[in-house]
Amino acid sequence: MRKTSMETHRRQQMADITERVQAAVEAAGIEQGLAVVYAPHTTAGITVNEGTDPHVERDILATLAQLVPTDGSYAHAEGNSDAHVKATLVGNSVTLMVNEGRLALGTWQRLFLFEGDGPRRRRVWVEVVNSRP
Amino acid sequence: MRKTSMETHRRQQMADITERVQAAVEAAGIEQGLAVVYAPHTTAGITVNEGTDPHVERDILATLAQLVPTDGSYAHAEGNSDAHVKATLVGNSVTLMVNEGRLALGTWQRLFLFEGDGPRRRRVWVEVVNSRP
Amino acid sequence: MRKTSMETHRRQQMADITERVQAAVEAAGIEQGLAVVYAPHTTAGITVNEGTDPHVERDILATLAQLVPTDGSYAHAEGNSDAHVKATLVGNSVTLMVNEGRLALGTWQRLFLFEGDGPRRRRVWVEVVNSRP
Repeated sequence: MRKTSMETHRRQQMADITERVQAAVEAAGIEQGLAVVYAPHTTAGITVNEGTDPHVERDILATLAQLVPTDGSYAHAEGNSDAHVKATLVGNSVTLMVNEGRLALGTWQRLFLFEGDGPRRRRVWVEVVNSRP
Repeated sequence: MRKTSMETHRRQQMADITERVQAAVEAAGIEQGLAVVYAPHTTAGITVNEGTDPHVERDILATLAQLVPTDGSYAHAEGNSDAHVKATLVGNSVTLMVNEGRLALGTWQRLFLFEGDGPRRRRVWVEVVNSRP
Repeated sequence: MRKTSMETHRRQQMADITERVQAAVEAAGIEQGLAVVYAPHTTAGITVNEGTDPHVERDILATLAQLVPTDGSYAHAEGNSDAHVKATLVGNSVTLMVNEGRLALGTWQRLFLFEGDGPRRRRVWVEVVNSRP
């Protein structure tokens, strides 16, 4: 398992982690297989979406905020209940494919850490498995 | 990695891809392990749900449309912002188990490509890893 | 593949399955790799979230109930359409990492079966793959 960490800068944010995950996959040295990207948190997630137009990230965050408002009526008293719910909706990991030693992504796909309760330090774990051992 | 592609027929659709993924898994020739099914897109996803009653597919699409309306107020100017958001909510891959050379699905489970911005040609990638190498 | 099953006790519930999945992973006897946890159902899911404060589970269920009401207008006539939609939003599996023979979870993370249409008997499947074969 390879571990990396980063600072997020806003309460809610989509942070592009494609390059650091790519680097972890290349360092693992497999040719063909899977790469799992995992956030060991309960108020953050991992997702794949478009990274070219930053409006897409904004629309994702704004829609999540409408569906699960920060100031909604919640039982959990820490003020971050919305982020827990969003973490379950977004999911806390993604599984990607590795092809010829690199992440196999679609043309427009980038990999994001979804931050739901920042700013703070977040960790991302990457594990690869070889499909041609 | 095995690649397949298909045409979708409506703007929003749940396309049953169970048989083509089953065929890819059988062609891979492993007995026991995992099969990852991946959509290399940012306005489509992959999900498991009931396939017997087509009303379930309709309810999923209708609910997603209520939660994330196509004509909502979005920053991204391509008219498909809702599909980007839905792709993150649905997720762009699933991981299934392979048992005795075939997909291990629950009694009512079928595998679907969620189309959020069709009709268009969509690709689905399948990678298997052997748990008994 | 290791199979386990359990009774849920309410229509909607977050059931902590961390210990039973931990036991399945330890029984599998790998040191390093992945563990996939899979619900072979279409009205239940698997998710990772906080388990220390039970209010978090309640907030997740209450928010899902607001977004996808049980008594909404649905085409599927079995009275559990909301649970099908929630299963797709939550997702029916998670992929975790195995480190030194045990599940690698974040400090606050616990693993949950999301029950959307209980009470009933639910099955959970666990498969592990070794990343250092």
